[in-house]
Amino acid sequence: MCGIVGVYNTPDPFTEIFESLYMLQHRGGPEGTGVLFSNSREFISPAPHRTLGLVEQCANEWPGETPAQVHLAIGHTRYGTAGAHSNKENVQPLLRRTRFGHLAIGHNGDTPGFEKKQRTIQQAGAMLTTTSDTEVLLHDIGQQEPDNLCGALLDSLGEYRGAFSLILTTPSELIGCRDPWGYRPLSIGRLGDGFILASETCVFDVLGAEYVRDVEPGELVWIDSQGLQSYWISSKNEYPRQQCVFEQIYLARPDSKVFGKHVDKFRKELGAELAREYGHPSHNDQLLDPDEMVIFGVPDSAVFIAEGYTEELGNSRKDVLIRHHYSGRTFMLPGQKNRDNGVRLKFNPLRHHIEDKWCVILDDSLVRGTTMRRIVRMVRKNGAAGVTVLIASPQILHPCKYGIDMKTYKELVAAENEGDVEKIQKFIEADSLYYLSIEGLKRVIGDHENFCLACFNGEYAL
Amino acid sequence: MCGIVGVYNTPDPFTEIFESLYMLQHRGGPEGTGVLFSNSREFISPAPHRTLGLVEQCANEWPGETPAQVHLAIGHTRYGTAGAHSNKENVQPLLRRTRFGHLAIGHNGDTPGFEKKQRTIQQAGAMLTTTSDTEVLLHDIGQQEPDNLCGALLDSLGEYRGAFSLILTTPSELIGCRDPWGYRPLSIGRLGDGFILASETCVFDVLGAEYVRDVEPGELVWIDSQGLQSYWISSKNEYPRQQCVFEQIYLARPDSKVFGKHVDKFRKELGAELAREYGHPSHNDQLLDPDEMVIFGVPDSAVFIAEGYTEELGNSRKDVLIRHHYSGRTFMLPGQKNRDNGVRLKFNPLRHHIEDKWCVILDDSLVRGTTMRRIVRMVRKNGAAGVTVLIASPQILHPCKYGIDMKTYKELVAAENEGDVEKIQKFIEADSLYYLSIEGLKRVIGDHENFCLACFNGEYAL
Amino acid sequence: MCGIVGVYNTPDPFTEIFESLYMLQHRGGPEGTGVLFSNSREFISPAPHRTLGLVEQCANEWPGETPAQVHLAIGHTRYGTAGAHSNKENVQPLLRRTRFGHLAIGHNGDTPGFEKKQRTIQQAGAMLTTTSDTEVLLHDIGQQEPDNLCGALLDSLGEYRGAFSLILTTPSELIGCRDPWGYRPLSIGRLGDGFILASETCVFDVLGAEYVRDVEPGELVWIDSQGLQSYWISSKNEYPRQQCVFEQIYLARPDSKVFGKHVDKFRKELGAELAREYGHPSHNDQLLDPDEMVIFGVPDSAVFIAEGYTEELGNSRKDVLIRHHYSGRTFMLPGQKNRDNGVRLKFNPLRHHIEDKWCVILDDSLVRGTTMRRIVRMVRKNGAAGVTVLIASPQILHPCKYGIDMKTYKELVAAENEGDVEKIQKFIEADSLYYLSIEGLKRVIGDHENFCLACFNGEYAL
Amino acid sequence: MCGIVGVYNTPDPFTEIFESLYMLQHRGGPEGTGVLFSNSREFISPAPHRTLGLVEQCANEWPGETPAQVHLAIGHTRYGTAGAHSNKENVQPLLRRTRFGHLAIGHNGDTPGFEKKQRTIQQAGAMLTTTSDTEVLLHDIGQQEPDNLCGALLDSLGEYRGAFSLILTTPSELIGCRDPWGYRPLSIGRLGDGFILASETCVFDVLGAEYVRDVEPGELVWIDSQGLQSYWISSKNEYPRQQCVFEQIYLARPDSKVFGKHVDKFRKELGAELAREYGHPSHNDQLLDPDEMVIFGVPDSAVFIAEGYTEELGNSRKDVLIRHHYSGRTFMLPGQKNRDNGVRLKFNPLRHHIEDKWCVILDDSLVRGTTMRRIVRMVRKNGAAGVTVLIASPQILHPCKYGIDMKTYKELVAAENEGDVEKIQKFIEADSLYYLSIEGLKRVIGDHENFCLACFNGEYAL
Repeated sequence: MCGIVGVYNTPDPFTEIFESLYMLQHRGGPEGTGVLFSNSREFISPAPHRTLGLVEQCANEWPGETPAQVHLAIGHTRYGTAGAHSNKENVQPLLRRTRFGHLAIGHNGDTPGFEKKQRTIQQAGAMLTTTSDTEVLLHDIGQQEPDNLCGALLDSLGEYRGAFSLILTTPSELIGCRDPWGYRPLSIGRLGDGFILASETCVFDVLGAEYVRDVEPGELVWIDSQGLQSYWISSKNEYPRQQCVFEQIYLARPDSKVFGKHVDKFRKELGAELAREYGHPSHNDQLLDPDEMVIFGVPDSAVFIAEGYTEELGNSRKDVLIRHHYSGRTFMLPGQKNRDNGVRLKFNPLRHHIEDKWCVILDDSLVRGTTMRRIVRMVRKNGAAGVTVLIASPQILHPCKYGIDMKTYKELVAAENEGDVEKIQKFIEADSLYYLSIEGLKRVIGDHENFCLACFNGEYAL
Repeated sequence: MCGIVGVYNTPDPFTEIFESLYMLQHRGGPEGTGVLFSNSREFISPAPHRTLGLVEQCANEWPGETPAQVHLAIGHTRYGTAGAHSNKENVQPLLRRTRFGHLAIGHNGDTPGFEKKQRTIQQAGAMLTTTSDTEVLLHDIGQQEPDNLCGALLDSLGEYRGAFSLILTTPSELIGCRDPWGYRPLSIGRLGDGFILASETCVFDVLGAEYVRDVEPGELVWIDSQGLQSYWISSKNEYPRQQCVFEQIYLARPDSKVFGKHVDKFRKELGAELAREYGHPSHNDQLLDPDEMVIFGVPDSAVFIAEGYTEELGNSRKDVLIRHHYSGRTFMLPGQKNRDNGVRLKFNPLRHHIEDKWCVILDDSLVRGTTMRRIVRMVRKNGAAGVTVLIASPQILHPCKYGIDMKTYKELVAAENEGDVEKIQKFIEADSLYYLSIEGLKRVIGDHENFCLACFNGEYAL
Repeated sequence: MCGIVGVYNTPDPFTEIFESLYMLQHRGGPEGTGVLFSNSREFISPAPHRTLGLVEQCANEWPGETPAQVHLAIGHTRYGTAGAHSNKENVQPLLRRTRFGHLAIGHNGDTPGFEKKQRTIQQAGAMLTTTSDTEVLLHDIGQQEPDNLCGALLDSLGEYRGAFSLILTTPSELIGCRDPWGYRPLSIGRLGDGFILASETCVFDVLGAEYVRDVEPGELVWIDSQGLQSYWISSKNEYPRQQCVFEQIYLARPDSKVFGKHVDKFRKELGAELAREYGHPSHNDQLLDPDEMVIFGVPDSAVFIAEGYTEELGNSRKDVLIRHHYSGRTFMLPGQKNRDNGVRLKFNPLRHHIEDKWCVILDDSLVRGTTMRRIVRMVRKNGAAGVTVLIASPQILHPCKYGIDMKTYKELVAAENEGDVEKIQKFIEADSLYYLSIEGLKRVIGDHENFCLACFNGEYAL
Repeated sequence: MCGIVGVYNTPDPFTEIFESLYMLQHRGGPEGTGVLFSNSREFISPAPHRTLGLVEQCANEWPGETPAQVHLAIGHTRYGTAGAHSNKENVQPLLRRTRFGHLAIGHNGDTPGFEKKQRTIQQAGAMLTTTSDTEVLLHDIGQQEPDNLCGALLDSLGEYRGAFSLILTTPSELIGCRDPWGYRPLSIGRLGDGFILASETCVFDVLGAEYVRDVEPGELVWIDSQGLQSYWISSKNEYPRQQCVFEQIYLARPDSKVFGKHVDKFRKELGAELAREYGHPSHNDQLLDPDEMVIFGVPDSAVFIAEGYTEELGNSRKDVLIRHHYSGRTFMLPGQKNRDNGVRLKFNPLRHHIEDKWCVILDDSLVRGTTMRRIVRMVRKNGAAGVTVLIASPQILHPCKYGIDMKTYKELVAAENEGDVEKIQKFIEADSLYYLSIEGLKRVIGDHENFCLACFNGEYAL
């Protein structure tokens, strides 16, 4: 759940890297933002420049003058794992002095069982500064035989069993790579005479860049003064594609195109499929009277789901939950622990839409269930006659090993209740609850064999 | 355009004051946030605690422990005037040591021609620390004859010709007051055994407080251990009501009830009135084909306008401009000057909704016109076949003297073009432009004689 | 115990004001440093620039570029009263917008019974932001009748009964003034075509400026484009001079000339007088054997006293206490309360000079006695055979009302023990103790009728 | 020129580590201070805690509560090389996750030709984060064969050709080591039931600890719950001792005992030897008249030299240069480049001691010569009749490869002038100049064969 971006020889790399990261802010919260610039001969101090805050803070804390001659740059926005003490050293990009010269890396993804790999490289003498699999990946590159960077990368990454989209830079080269399964996205854009690599295509829109294509699963693109060259860390199609469908369901911005699909359309289609599968809202086998109910999505991720659902049914949706403008980041007083607080301040319901109405609440997915429970309580307190919750994706029964922040069975409300919908419904305190079927999801996807559905069906490829 | 809040004897004033301010964040940007707490005997250090940043920053920078025994508190979020060097001393609440003891003040409003008043109090010996009319107001109180605070307040405020909603506190008393014309809002809520005064009612919702009523124009409410008592700084109805309709049109949160009206409903009604006045979108006297056009509002303020407009016409609205989650605050690199930048990063359009379609863009009002021009350019760049702009309020032909940040004729696109719609349309680069008529606005308001429409019709009461 | 400085039309006022303040650092600790610059038409933002730290921090935190066209400047370094919560608003210079335009003030001194004066100006409507007598002084100026600044100053200051050396500035004028008794110092220097006013002459040395003369007691010097003009707030010699001898004994830098006397020479003479009065170190009426004793002063203030004492006796002094280079500021871990700690880390004794020797320790004065007790314990722990303490000034039996930080009887070890030398000796845990007599001090001063000796003899003039 | 300290099982390690570092502040300026604490099972977050400022700043910036159960700790104060961009990652202690678990290191010393060693470890796959030889040393440890830490340390350090005093820690063990030549100091102290390792013995004095002995050259001391055990990285006396005499001449505090010698006594003896060699001050073969000259040392390092010189001659010394109390750190306005500035603000001469007198200035050594030139100019400007400079050590003709900040021939005034005293005298603008002879220095040292004199005689052992 991180965002990565690299630019090479674009008109104004200093501005472009920060604006790109700002467009990827949803892929990383206040846990950290880092940038690194090169003038083509060497990285520009501070190298890297990292903060424990949002992109804006990172930009504002740039010390001294804006560097004049930036040739290439790399940026990273980090979604940290809760609980771990925040530490600037964990903020990427990581920069190391290696036998290949200075080498920087930004990483999106995760490595199942990385502790074993870590022990191996420590045995070979590695001295680690962080607890991240990214540094393990980097050391693995350093311990390969080839004495040139490209060879070492191909050897290391070709054998590495983990989910990764990577951007690497030397002072004069920009490199992008996706793992052979293609878990996480990475796209190529062109701006002026230069190149951009970014996690999502919305970056290209705001920069006025042209979207060229995605980096292919298993492909390594090497960008230097000769242009872009393509290498393969595994034979093409050696492994099955395992693109993360959660990108489309929840993570990516609606204005991005991910794995070839417009995210907003995908979500609208999830809503429409829900309408086809589940039909008109009902309770105890009785259709709800349109005048006595109100249908709305949880902003912002379920807005398009609500649109698809209501358009398919010929119903109308309302904007019932007023979202706080500044709520990208949860407001929390120092020392406060109650996460419910965040929900209460983030969404305020319009009482006159709810009072004495049956609320039909749409959301993209149900992970912990606590946010939805808080919303259900909130609408009841405002006089809702009843609450139906419709989830536009199947039950999440298995944790993700590939980079989405749902890493244990324990934190999954569906897994904890062994998929018993009635129990889940009680947990979230709704009157009724419906999940889109996995078949429904597959219909929306289309080429579903190219996607990882492990969190729904437990079929892990790695 | 500031937000003020005061709490007295509520369950947890420290938390409540910060959460209240957070809900009023839209009434004050990064220009400043301040709080002040009392344990009923004295104000608690730091007094006041002020930052030049958002509410969250103010809360995070609270030094030391959370004070244990807070009895009353006051908070302020400031919308500063552009250009002036940011200075903590201008951040409210202001606290002064006076012959009435310690006295703090938070102010929302503005004073026409305050320089004259300022000279008067300086002649009487006042030594000012700020450039704000708030401090002038405060000194005016100090220079009255009565030797008790209540008397001095009634004498001073009863003669003061300016727009103000005020919250004042001594260490043991909470005082609220609205000017006799009622320009700016101020409401009373109850929580537990205590009271809350706040600029908007959305504060009461999230705190779980009960909305009691508004402070009346010309009323001063005095809250202490005896409960709430009401005083009048002018005879009731001595002056005509001049409530600011711009609160409903643009400024207030949609989930607030301002001057007795639900803001979301008011905006929806503006959209519906526009539908009734202007009808179906047309160009050169030809109705646009529904399949070849797309109707959308500029988020978030015009979302309800678009709902009202399309529902009235039986059309459907789309969510076309994807708003950045963190964009409450405009993202700007240090040193960047181009405000267009903010628009580009704030809104990204969904191209597939726009391409080859005629875009019908709804917005609440047109002040400078530069944001709308940028949006028009943006949709054209994404392939729009044409652009019609519909504004759900009349032309703003006159500056505001009472607290809205449009203080000069020069900054008003309608005034600069002498109300020539064609010229304004050219300025914003649209193909057609329509404003709601002033009669239409009056119909939506209903009791329009109680409202200030000076920015539309130039009829200033002060 | 503050330092003040003002510069007018000097070659580089920005640098000069900070370097001057650095040379006055001993007159104000980390409690606050402030500066204010004018380009001759207006004060330059931030106005004033204040920090709660040392001069260096104040300089380092100057935001943005060095201002190019500084014409005049004022600076202040503050010795705050312990206990009060640190607050930037108390840091001087204070700047106010008055009927005379912008007016800034920096103050060194204190006002006996200022609460009464404060009540008077509050009754007249003053709204105070600080708890300092400086702001009271400022408001008193504002409440005078004359409608020009010079007149108001002469009226106000001529009647003001307090100890003050002041520097005031408007954007185009630099003003200095000493109270009629001359309690605190203020000197005039010339640099290039401009003027400098400063608390001590060491400032002139390091800036390469020429020392002209002191501002006279009761004199107000007004510096503008016409040069320096002299006014009198009281008839010359209307009041007896009451210059603070503690400046020479303890406060001022040894390289300054204060009230016409070289401070280092004055201190050396105190040591010599002690030698003449007390003679060779003895214990129980037996002279100590020079080979079995070691004589040393407490650095740095008593170094010259030790020189004077030993030279007069033909003995030699040692450097026994090694002073920490960075100890201008006491090192204290956050939360530590034990001030003894400061002594332990500030001075480390050379054991081989002390072991089995009788230590004769010289110091300039004894206020609380706790530092000396800690030193006595320290040398005993390092094997001292005995300890004689010689104090080169009389017993401090009365608090200071005029600006030295010894404001209550309770904190004075001599007052607490009613002048009983034996009891004081026991308190500091020495084997013997001798104070210079008040006659001895008067002999060293010479024109002692011009000096305030109230802390020694209780004869307060105000 | 760094300071290192480690504590194990002492009464209050949190306080003791900061106080120890404060006593070693002269061995590291504002370039960086770092600490790391363990509760015996794991390092306590933040691990390590590092700042780019002085010890006081490091202590003040400790986030959150004081950790309750500190068992061992390590601290480092850094003297950075000028010019390099300051970077927290270079501040020690360095902490790495290794196959031996967490391992931290603090280093004082330098490695001649470390680039070669660096290449070797990079070839073996090392990914470096810093540019320091300390990290190279650490990686070298990681790449040894033994699978236990002690074995790897003995193998690595025994073969490492560089000057180092090291402190290493695991969460439960404290390790100290000096290179076989013994270039840099490291001493062992006992406090309560625990141990302290520190660069200088003055640390033990202020903590009330007992000085036990020095770590021997080539010795590795391993402290854990079993107590202290001694290992040898080389056979005892396998290499000649090469203790750095510059520690005694200039670097160490006068109250420390370094390499078995009291530093203050050593310096006094240097002064006395100078008196024996050079005799009474003279000019052009004429002895100077005692009444027409003044003898003084440059504070603080030459104060004892002046004492030794004048006592030997029966002359008296004066305190002529008043040193600024806060001048441990050079005061420099942001952007200022002129280092002369530092001298001007650091020392202010007492004019009445100098005027029309011949100044005999003693200093410990002459490196760049620029500070002395500034002092000579300063005394001439204050009316000196002439200036004789006496240096209590020989000419520095060769750079130091072992950790003293004089790393190139170019920066050495003696080397640049090929040892021509007359030229050097002209450079510093003195009337005469004398250096102590190398034989004189050897006489003062006594066992000079145990000391490195390479900067004087070019005889490098490594």
